[in-house]
Amino acid sequence: MTIFSKIINGDIPCYKIAEDEHYFAFLDINPLAKGHILVVPKQEVDYIFDLDSDTYLGLMAFARKISVAIKNTIPCQRVGVAVIGMEVPHAHIHLIPINSEGDMNFANPKLKLSPEEMNLIAESISANFIA
Amino acid sequence: MTIFSKIINGDIPCYKIAEDEHYFAFLDINPLAKGHILVVPKQEVDYIFDLDSDTYLGLMAFARKISVAIKNTIPCQRVGVAVIGMEVPHAHIHLIPINSEGDMNFANPKLKLSPEEMNLIAESISANFIA
Repeated sequence: MTIFSKIINGDIPCYKIAEDEHYFAFLDINPLAKGHILVVPKQEVDYIFDLDSDTYLGLMAFARKISVAIKNTIPCQRVGVAVIGMEVPHAHIHLIPINSEGDMNFANPKLKLSPEEMNLIAESISANFIA
Repeated sequence: MTIFSKIINGDIPCYKIAEDEHYFAFLDINPLAKGHILVVPKQEVDYIFDLDSDTYLGLMAFARKISVAIKNTIPCQRVGVAVIGMEVPHAHIHLIPINSEGDMNFANPKLKLSPEEMNLIAESISANFIA
């Protein structure tokens, strides 16, 4: 079972944003920016383009709704999208509030935020999520 | 009119991969890797999440088909996805053949490929594209 499946199941805690029957969104624990979120399918598939078409498009639709919630919560020029997927063998989309191209650089130092701050960010974005 | 609309219209040349009624794919002229492709909607909308839902999901479905063609052409571990969109005010998805997380770093030096090489890459990927 992947670490993301353990998060989805509640075996590992997370700062949850939203979920529905097939998808789950939570704060990246090593964020590039405040409001950096991971969106994952509940189905355990490593490579995003190996998802069946319906699940893939549903994931993209869910990511769009999360992006709108981020943009309505975190001051930023836009929400950037990245799918790399080398770290965890469970497809995931990074959604990152950005103000410049350099903000999307995964070599940038990660933010160190307190649990209180992470909770506040998660609750604020979650409150703006429209299912 | 954006530079991408001029490319779509044929006013500016490109190394085209594929197009359909609503979407267009071509080689990034400053590639991070061989087979780095831009996928764009023909509709001129700056921010990807401002596209109407059908156009957005159609774009994602088209990008998936392009990704499969890339993966079947260019030796790579997977195709990475990035949407940043600060450079040109016309929504576009970067699809990049990658073998490590660092391959997705837009601060990396861009490849200098000859027109002959770019043509060969475009023709090879295009031949593997299934509409």
